[in-house]
Formats: sequence, C-alpha cells, structure tokens
Amino acid sequence: MADYKAPLQEIRFVMNDVFDAPSLWASMPRLAERVDPDTADAIIEEAGKVTTNVIAPLNREGDEQGCQWNDGKVTTPEGFREAYQTIVDGGWNGLGGNPDFGGMGMPKTLVVQFEEMLQASNMALGLAPMLTAGACLALDAHGSEELKEKYLPNLYSGVWSGSMDLTEPHCGTDLGIMRSRAVPREDGSYSLSGTKIFITWGEHDMAENIIHFVLAKLPDAPRGPKGISLFLVPKFLVNDDGSLGERNAFSCGSIEKKMGIKGSATCVMNFDGAQGWLVGEENKGLAAMFTMMNYERLGVGIQGLAAAEASLQSAREYAFERIQSRAPTGARNPEQAADPLVVHPDVRRMLLTMKAYVEGGRAFSTYVGQWLDIAKFSDEDADREQAEGLVALLTPVAKAFLTDRGFDMCVVGQQVFGGHGYIREWGQEQLVRDARITQIYEGANGIQALDLMGRKVVGSQGKLYELFADDLAAFIEKEQGNVALEPFLAPLAASLERLSDVTEQVLNQSKDDPNAPGAASADYTNLFGLTALAYMWAKMVVAAAPKAEGDSSGFYSGKLKTARFFYERLLPQTVSLAESIRSGSQSMMEHADNEF
Amino acid sequence: MADYKAPLQEIRFVMNDVFDAPSLWASMPRLAERVDPDTADAIIEEAGKVTTNVIAPLNREGDEQGCQWNDGKVTTPEGFREAYQTIVDGGWNGLGGNPDFGGMGMPKTLVVQFEEMLQASNMALGLAPMLTAGACLALDAHGSEELKEKYLPNLYSGVWSGSMDLTEPHCGTDLGIMRSRAVPREDGSYSLSGTKIFITWGEHDMAENIIHFVLAKLPDAPRGPKGISLFLVPKFLVNDDGSLGERNAFSCGSIEKKMGIKGSATCVMNFDGAQGWLVGEENKGLAAMFTMMNYERLGVGIQGLAAAEASLQSAREYAFERIQSRAPTGARNPEQAADPLVVHPDVRRMLLTMKAYVEGGRAFSTYVGQWLDIAKFSDEDADREQAEGLVALLTPVAKAFLTDRGFDMCVVGQQVFGGHGYIREWGQEQLVRDARITQIYEGANGIQALDLMGRKVVGSQGKLYELFADDLAAFIEKEQGNVALEPFLAPLAASLERLSDVTEQVLNQSKDDPNAPGAASADYTNLFGLTALAYMWAKMVVAAAPKAEGDSSGFYSGKLKTARFFYERLLPQTVSLAESIRSGSQSMMEHADNEF
Repeated sequence: MADYKAPLQEIRFVMNDVFDAPSLWASMPRLAERVDPDTADAIIEEAGKVTTNVIAPLNREGDEQGCQWNDGKVTTPEGFREAYQTIVDGGWNGLGGNPDFGGMGMPKTLVVQFEEMLQASNMALGLAPMLTAGACLALDAHGSEELKEKYLPNLYSGVWSGSMDLTEPHCGTDLGIMRSRAVPREDGSYSLSGTKIFITWGEHDMAENIIHFVLAKLPDAPRGPKGISLFLVPKFLVNDDGSLGERNAFSCGSIEKKMGIKGSATCVMNFDGAQGWLVGEENKGLAAMFTMMNYERLGVGIQGLAAAEASLQSAREYAFERIQSRAPTGARNPEQAADPLVVHPDVRRMLLTMKAYVEGGRAFSTYVGQWLDIAKFSDEDADREQAEGLVALLTPVAKAFLTDRGFDMCVVGQQVFGGHGYIREWGQEQLVRDARITQIYEGANGIQALDLMGRKVVGSQGKLYELFADDLAAFIEKEQGNVALEPFLAPLAASLERLSDVTEQVLNQSKDDPNAPGAASADYTNLFGLTALAYMWAKMVVAAAPKAEGDSSGFYSGKLKTARFFYERLLPQTVSLAESIRSGSQSMMEHADNEF
Repeated sequence: MADYKAPLQEIRFVMNDVFDAPSLWASMPRLAERVDPDTADAIIEEAGKVTTNVIAPLNREGDEQGCQWNDGKVTTPEGFREAYQTIVDGGWNGLGGNPDFGGMGMPKTLVVQFEEMLQASNMALGLAPMLTAGACLALDAHGSEELKEKYLPNLYSGVWSGSMDLTEPHCGTDLGIMRSRAVPREDGSYSLSGTKIFITWGEHDMAENIIHFVLAKLPDAPRGPKGISLFLVPKFLVNDDGSLGERNAFSCGSIEKKMGIKGSATCVMNFDGAQGWLVGEENKGLAAMFTMMNYERLGVGIQGLAAAEASLQSAREYAFERIQSRAPTGARNPEQAADPLVVHPDVRRMLLTMKAYVEGGRAFSTYVGQWLDIAKFSDEDADREQAEGLVALLTPVAKAFLTDRGFDMCVVGQQVFGGHGYIREWGQEQLVRDARITQIYEGANGIQALDLMGRKVVGSQGKLYELFADDLAAFIEKEQGNVALEPFLAPLAASLERLSDVTEQVLNQSKDDPNAPGAASADYTNLFGLTALAYMWAKMVVAAAPKAEGDSSGFYSGKLKTARFFYERLLPQTVSLAESIRSGSQSMMEHADNEF
C-alpha cells in the first residue's frame, strides 16, 4: 500500500490561493499580530512532516494490535505513546487554543489543515488531540477562571488529555433522559455517579492525567434536556500546587470491540461518587457541551474527508502501477502484457469522483474555517453576526456531507484495488472501517440533517439559509465575465436556485406538517452539500485558471478538468434530490406499524 | 441483535403471487413432472427451518473465530462442520442439479429463494454450497461423461465440495495474462503448476474431498484469453471404484486476513505438478468457466440482497424497541420517557429505503430466475432464445445492482443502530463487512457494468436491450386500466423511455468513441437497475392490490405503500443518472496522468 503523504501543495492551494487566508488574517488585528504567512507556512510544513513520518506509519499496526484493557487499565498499541509525546512536544494540542492559557491562538483556516493531516495519517490516535481541543474550547468558554487556570495549560500542552462523557446505555441522541447524577458536596464540588458508554479515549496510557467532561443531573434538576449540567472530573485530583493527587472514584469498566478505529479505546466509564466541578451554570450543561460538540462536528467532517484523502492517495498509486487489460482505444503499453488500470474509463471515473469530493471537501472545510475565524476574531459586529449564522448553518453540512461522502469515497478507493482492497494488509479496508464511525458519532448524520433542516433552516424561517444564498449569489455576480468560469456559472446559479426553491418549499410544507423537515432532511443535506461543493469548485477554478496556462506540472489544469468532471458527472444528483424532497413526507409517514 | 428469521411470507408472495411460478413450472413438461406447488412449498418451509435454526446461529461466532490455517490445513469455526453436514443431509447442495447425476433438478425460481435464505443466514458458510453448485454447473455442461459420473454425484450431495481457481497474484480481471501451466501426461491427464490466490473454500475440513476447477495454459496455447483451458483437480485422487486415493500435489499455502466473511477460508493455492483432467476443449476454458461464473454472478447478487434482508430485520426490530426522543407530532408513548425510533421521519426513510430495495431485489432475482427456467426447460426454441438473451443482459445487473444496493442497505441498517451499530456484538457491522465482498468478487462491479454496457448492450447493437424493453412495454400495455397501478404506470413508462433514450445515445456515442461504453457503464447499470426495480414494484402492486383490501395484517397494504415510497423517493435518481451519462466520456478521459 502507498504510505500517506501530507498533500501540502493541495493544502497550500486551498488556504492561500482559493481563500487567501493570509489577507483574512491581516485584516483582523487580533489575528494579524499572531500569524503571518511565513509562520503559517512553517506550521503546515512541520505538520506535514510529523503526520507523514511519525504518525502515519503507526496506523496499520494500531489497527491490528488495538487497545488492550486489563483491570481498568488501557494499553495503547506499540508506538502510540511516543507519537502522542511528539504531538505534545510540538504543541499541536493547543494550536487553536487561547494564548492566555498557553494555546497558540492560530486561526481555524490554518488549524483545519493540520486537523486533516492528523486524521488522515491516523484517525484512532488523532481522536485524542481532537477531543482534548474540544474539551478546552468548552472549558475556555464556560469554565470559571479558577478551573481554566488549573486545567487549561496542561490540556493545551497535551500533558493531560480531555474526554467527553455524554452517552449512556439507554440514551445517545436523547440526552434528556440520562440517569447520571451529581450531588453537591459541602466544599462546592459534586459527587458524580452513573455509567457512560462510547467514551473515546476515556482511559489510556499516553497522558499523565485525563480530564473528563461529564454530563449529569443535579438532584433537583428539571426533567429533560434543560436539567443537564456539565462537570469537570479529573482522573487524578489536582492539588493546589498543580501536582497530581489521589485517583478519583471512577474507572474504565471495559472497552468496546468495534468495527474500526481499533487503535483507539472506546470506554465504558463507571462513576462511583467521583469528585467533579461544575463547568458553567447549573442545568445549562447542554449548551456548554454544544460548544464542544460544534467544534467536534467540523472536526469529524474533516475526519471523513481525511480518510478519503488517504484512500485516494493509495488508489491513485495503485491505478498507475497495476496493469490489467487493454485501453479501449488500443494498447497504451504494447511492450507490457497489459495497460495500467488508469486507462479504463470506469477506473478514471472512480479516481475523479474521489478527487472531486476530497478536494471540494477540503475547500469546504476551509470555507467553514473562514467563517469561524471571522466569528471569533472580527472587530465588526455585523461581520461576526453573519459569520456566526453561517457557522451554525454550515456545521451540520460539514459533519454529515463530508463524512457521508468521505465514507463512500473510501469504499470507492477500496474498489479500485479489486480483491486486494478486501485484504487487510493493503490498508484500504481499514480506511472504510475507520471512516464508518464518522457518520455515526458526534450526532449521527440523521441528527445533523435534522439540525440543518429543522433547527437551522426552518427554525430561523430561512434567515440562516439566506446568509449562504447571499454569499453564493454575490460570488456569481462578482465573477460574471470571468472567462474561466464561463462553463460553470450557469449550472452553479441553477443549483443555487434549485436549493433556494426547495428550501422555500420545505418552509411551506412545514407550516402544516411537523414531519416535513425530518422527511426532507437527509436529501436536503445532500443537496446542500453538492451545491456548496459546486461553489467550492468554482472558487478553485477562479484560483487555478490564471496559473494553469503554461503550467507543465498539471496541478492547475487538473483543477479545471476536475471541476468539469464534478459539474458534469456529480452535480446532476441535485436534480433528483430536489424531486424527491418535493414529494413531501406522506410516502414515509403513511405506513402503519405492521406495514413495515 | 435480532436473530435472522427466514422471511417465508415475503418469499411465498414473490414466488407464488408475483411470478406465479407454479403455473410456469406446470407449463413446461420437463419441470411439471418434477415439481408441484406442494413440493416447492415444503422445500421453502424446510429451507426456512434449516437456515433460521441451524445456520444463522453460527454467523456471529464464525466471524469472531474465523478460519485457522496450520501447515496447509484449514480448521473451520466451531459448528461449521456440523452445519455443513446438515446441508449435505438435506441434499441442499444439489437442489438445482442435474437429476441424471443425483441432483434434484428444481427450478431456479425456487432455488433462488433457498439461496437467499442460505446467504442471509451465514454468508461465509453459504459460499461453500454456492461454489459447489457453480462447479457442478460447469462440469455438467462441459465435462466428459466419465468425469461427470465420477464427480457429480458426490458434488451434488456435498460429500465433496467444489472450488473455482482463477485469480493469480498479478491477474484478476485480466485472466489472459495468467501464468499457471498444464502439461499433458501420457495417460491423457495433465500436470498443473502455478499459484492461485483468493480461492474461496479452497481448503477446509468440512468435506471429504475438494474438487478444484483450475484455469491454466497448455504449453502451446495462444496468448491471451483464447489460450486458457479448464481442469478438474481433486484434492484427493479418486480411484476407479470411487474411493479416495492419494493426496494430489497441491496445497493451501496460507489464508488471507480480510475485512469480512471471516468464517470462510480465502486460500492461496500452490499447484506443484498436480494431476488434473481437462474439462471441455483445450483453450476453451474461459467459456466453460463462464458457465460457472454466470451462475455465481446471480448468486452473488443474491448475497448482497440477503445481507440487506438480514440487516433490515435487525434494524426494524431495533427501531420499534429502542426509545429515543419524541415524535415531531407529539409524544406517541406519553407514559414512557421517549418514543420508539420508528416515529422519526428519517428513521422511517431508512427502513423504507431498505425495504424498497430488498423486496424489489428479491422480486428481481426471481425475475431473472424465471428467465433461467425458461432458457433451460422450455420446449419452444423462440422462448428459449428470448430467455437466454434476457439472462445474458440481466445477469450483470443482478450482480452489480443488487450488491451495490445490498451493501448500501447494510450501511443504512447499521446507521439505524447509531453507535451500537459500530460495536461488534450487535452484528450489524459484520453484515457491512461481509456484504462488501459481493461488490468485488466474481467480477468487480465495474466489470459487470462494462459487461452490461459494452458486451451486452453495445455488443448486440441494442438487440438484447430490446428484449427487456419489450417485456416491460408489454407489461405496461397489459396493465392499462388497472386502477391499483394508476399512480405508477406513467412514471414507469417515463423511466423506460429514459432508459431507452440513454441506451440509444450510448449506442450512438460508441460509434466514434471507444471510451463511451466504459464511461457510461456504472451510471447505466444503476439506471437500469432502478428501472428494473420500478418494474418489479409495479408487478408487486398488481399482485398485492386485490389482497390488500380488508387485510388487517398490513402485509399487502404495506406493499402498496412501499411501492409509492420507491416511486416518489428513490426512482427520481434515474433523472440525474441519465443526465450524467449524456455528458459522455470527455470529462473523465481528458485528464493527463499528472492531472490526477
């Protein structure tokens, strides 16, 4: 199998040429003082080295060995401890963190690039920094100064890792019915009891301490989601001088045997009067947890994209090396027994489909990163408000669309290998198994779709949608007359109009039909994602066209041709999706129980 | 997890009500004497018992244990030997076999139902009878009387098993470049040497002897696919009295570690001067092998369908049992903490999508079985010719479409379980891993698509396609005025027209563009499959409508509603597929190597 190599040229193209992130950073004072193009480029370069040389080589063996549980202790696969230490030494955990507490404060448009490389090189290991970064975000946003000072620096450094403890055996999506309890102690802390499941990296041997962020209910809490509070529960209690004290009263009861990400530990955590501290206000834990969740959701979308990038790299190499049958137009390698796979139209279709979604997905995650940066760093209230709205709208699309397509593309990359794709040693099937979880965790994709369609689009009466439509319409308007975009602007405008029409129809359907948003949601998310990727490909054409002429590397001209492939072969799916959505909810709601 | 239960009502509905197979059998003298409705029903009933009670319970543990290789010997998972013996004792191996040599000679319209149950209950174990039946078909069609008498009875009984040995490390699809050699011996037999890989059940401990059907080249063979011959190579030589003699000169060098079907052994076979006998004529082995392959291809399509049926059963049960959140229209179970998953529109969408493809797929495999029966048993030359043409056309659709959708539906079934779907003990993820191979082996689905589009449609200048279009057009014509079909006939006719238009366009494109068939092939297969399933759902409506009124079981009314779901939510994909195909090959052929 091909070893993963960080795609630095692709990443620099998107960050610098397509989104001109350096100008964005320079335009916002709080960022301008922190990051310049040279710093950013050095970070990208170093991230490429660490992920390519240190982390990626552990991926296969991590899958084979898996984590081992023994009497509450979890042993990670060979090399994981050392690689994690490399991440700590490089300060990668705190790349986007608050500089007041030891973070590097880098912009999201840069951080997403690192995240892609990390997750592509080793998703199982990559989950540890990802969860830690999410935990930091929640603590930074909602924790007391005391908690932040005590915990954030060691979390940003990665000397301690973070963990999210939400799910219970009987509740995943529906956290309102959780049973874990927190009882106040006299010293202002709380005693936590209950069982949490599916806790990623809830226990391991890579960090000195593990800080759990646990959702639980106070004794007098209201029923439902408004009665949930968030607690910080460290594995080892932390003394006032920062040294580690005694072991807290909780433990890892077992780890799951699962389909993939076997190098990571998915833990059952049993809390038995563990000492914890409230983060944020009582009964407002779900809002605090969502700060973390929203961060993770883009991160999980990037995991889907990243797995597909890794799969694409191997599939492309295999398609050029493996010889099998002759090109339809006659032998391309007459001196050899057969031609390389890549001469066959259907193999090219597979590679180009992967390329179109992966590169489009990379641009889309950077696009979301751009709005996250503006929301966080802009000094203009109106800009921040617009950006916050777009982030709210686009996050579920990034999570669901990038993971659905990411998984599908790993399946395609496996298919390119034929029978060898099914054999473990080639690595392609691991990517399929690993990528599969991204469609499920951090809110299953059905929940993302409902969040987009119900909460965001219908919930705002279309106002959040308009932010996206306006941004895309402004792009189309601005690029009128751009010759390179000539084949693309009309179908792009048609896609936008289709999406806007469907949006309005669902808004109308929803007035009389509470089931309308849910019935439309999955197809709508798909339609939205395709339209967004059409936008991204148009932006890539704008950036690539001036450099394509006279470029013998094929990099820029390849972008123009892949854009065409996306528009001709993939974008037409929007027509069918719109037609399906228009049919409304009846065909899925009219079945009685015994008619299933 | 829900245990698999053979869906006998569904199977009887398709076989008896939708296709009225008993009338078909009665209309053909050679079948009429062999099978009547009562016999057929008893076979279905017994197949249901064996697969539900004996074979399905071994499926999970077979995946966990896998096969073990030790010094050339393969040990099967616990219980597999006994279950295989149950299959032998029931005569299931020879259900469709030639009665002259001990087969039961049952029609394919019946055999496909058994195949579905077998593969749904345990795909790893089910591969053994499937490969044996395919081997028998090739031997029966091409072998000498002597070979047939010596080998067929023990293969039909299953006392011996069969194995297909095609692939080599450097050639899978492109068998023309194989290196295995067969040298004639003085006694008329041959000495075989070479290495074969991916040999399913090439070695195991369930049968007394394993009969390998091996492709190899004679010393003076022409280059390419026209220089391949087929040989029968038994693991133990068979004496003239039928007793087993010495071990033949080949062995299993190792078994693969693979993504799924872990209960089966995928073997590397090393032939070192092994004694074999020619099956059919010299250098015509590929044609003989294709007799086997075509049989297997429908069988593999059924595997995809079967895995999806198993996944659907569990997902449906889970969706009714697991409570999580409230229905959009208000609490359905106010006395409980939450409502069952099935109240949520998107969960219903998932279940109904599975149901629409699984039940449509079952009808489609029976439809192909119907043409196989006519091709084999009809006394009318014209009917046989029509049926043979349809079988040639529909086989790649059955293989590729049913496995692509079968896999996708296993993924959907896993998604219904949320996080639990990713955990091994729930069984849903195994179905995904198992089903994945069906898209790859027996000719990867890209090869199926090329066979359909290139060899069958373009190769016959559309004549084979016309057989299908005529059959569907005749149905539409005949059912004009059928009130139950009223909502369906117009979209069905539109789909047929769309498929016919696209077919003609690709025929035209292909005149100047050798890449056109390959470029269209995957989307075309998809479009064809959807149109065929629309036909199947219309046939199911015809059969169900008269029984739906006053039926309180929901079975028949559910069929009508699922048909609507298929037409409104799934069939629209055909619009996009047609648009993609129309764009031709350029967008995938214009990339230079360095533009990928």
